[in-house]
Amino acid sequence: MIQELIYLIKDEYGITFKDIGLLEQAFTHSSYVNEHRHLEMTDNERLEFLGDAVLELIISDYLYHHYQDLPEGKLTKLRATIVREDSLAMFAKDCQFDKFVRLGKGEENSNGRTRSSLLCDLFEAFLGSLFIDQGQEAAKDFIDQVIIPRIEAGAFSHEMDHKTALQEVLQKNGDILIDYQLVREEGPAHSRIFHVEINAGGKSLGIGSGKSKKAAEQKAAEVALADIANNKQS
Amino acid sequence: MIQELIYLIKDEYGITFKDIGLLEQAFTHSSYVNEHRHLEMTDNERLEFLGDAVLELIISDYLYHHYQDLPEGKLTKLRATIVREDSLAMFAKDCQFDKFVRLGKGEENSNGRTRSSLLCDLFEAFLGSLFIDQGQEAAKDFIDQVIIPRIEAGAFSHEMDHKTALQEVLQKNGDILIDYQLVREEGPAHSRIFHVEINAGGKSLGIGSGKSKKAAEQKAAEVALADIANNKQS
Repeated sequence: MIQELIYLIKDEYGITFKDIGLLEQAFTHSSYVNEHRHLEMTDNERLEFLGDAVLELIISDYLYHHYQDLPEGKLTKLRATIVREDSLAMFAKDCQFDKFVRLGKGEENSNGRTRSSLLCDLFEAFLGSLFIDQGQEAAKDFIDQVIIPRIEAGAFSHEMDHKTALQEVLQKNGDILIDYQLVREEGPAHSRIFHVEINAGGKSLGIGSGKSKKAAEQKAAEVALADIANNKQS
Repeated sequence: MIQELIYLIKDEYGITFKDIGLLEQAFTHSSYVNEHRHLEMTDNERLEFLGDAVLELIISDYLYHHYQDLPEGKLTKLRATIVREDSLAMFAKDCQFDKFVRLGKGEENSNGRTRSSLLCDLFEAFLGSLFIDQGQEAAKDFIDQVIIPRIEAGAFSHEMDHKTALQEVLQKNGDILIDYQLVREEGPAHSRIFHVEINAGGKSLGIGSGKSKKAAEQKAAEVALADIANNKQS
């Protein structure tokens, strides 16, 4: 079992642990330790404590530099969405970690292997063990392979405002200039309507309207994002 | 003002910023930016977002390695106590950072300069700027000077169990062997009382009693800690 895991993380992520015991510990749930007291093993809970903080910093550092226009409140919200239980459980399954965690019988029978909280803790514990065994740069490499592509594919875009989400989608394959142009204003001063057009890479992506320029820009970005999503599906 | 701050962090902590603008940003509250819009400054909130995560990892790493016997739940509680608002505001004042933060007039008049939440954010923002300008090792050096001595002096010992707190106090000046010895048991099996004596550095630090060996050890450590505290005061 552990041998299969060793091959998996080597093949998929290029990781070779120096201390296999540490890797085993990361994949050992407390329920397994409780059922095998004579083996004097240690469960993965302390590694989870450490891995949680490793993840938090690496994601924060990425978001800080990658979303230079997002204010603190939005950064905090985005970070919370990425590191929350459901997301980390999804990453653990992406990595097939659920196959390798050692559970006690009771935990196994009550479907612990598919429970979000358990998989989230497992993912953090693995990161903690990787951080100790291989250092922070290796943990960052792993996150670059497992989490960052998901962010860049827009998995968390619903947490961003539409302009930021559009920028994220359009700039995935390199820098592209996104231009918001006020094309028309109408109505009396106290209830004016603004119309904004988005241009990117030399073509129009759509027009949005609103009671302020800012609202019109957000609307235009929302329209453009919906168009892009529809084109992908068709 | 900024010159005085530059001298202070150089003299006290051996830190020389490459990017003074970043240091200034860390000490710029949003209220100051709002009152000086023509200067097009940036406040310290995004730096605070990053610094929060820097602090969390450095403290977690320290606690993980320093308290090898503490289970995850206790580590999490101890970390929360160290990085909570009141503690970080205290560290900010220790560093005299409160003198240098730039506030708007309204914030100044409502005593913002002494408010815990503002000082906590300031401390995190400084850490964020230090992390960007000088790297994680420099942030760790700073924390080693400002926070770790407080932990080692027992400022957060009330959050530890007595045995851990005693170990912390006694091992401040290097490793010392702390020995818990069961010296006596009495009473019938169903209500047995255990007496445990602590020895360290060749002398007895006291005896504790309890209904289990574990409880007696905790009691003995509590007695020893109280003795040490009394001796310091007298």
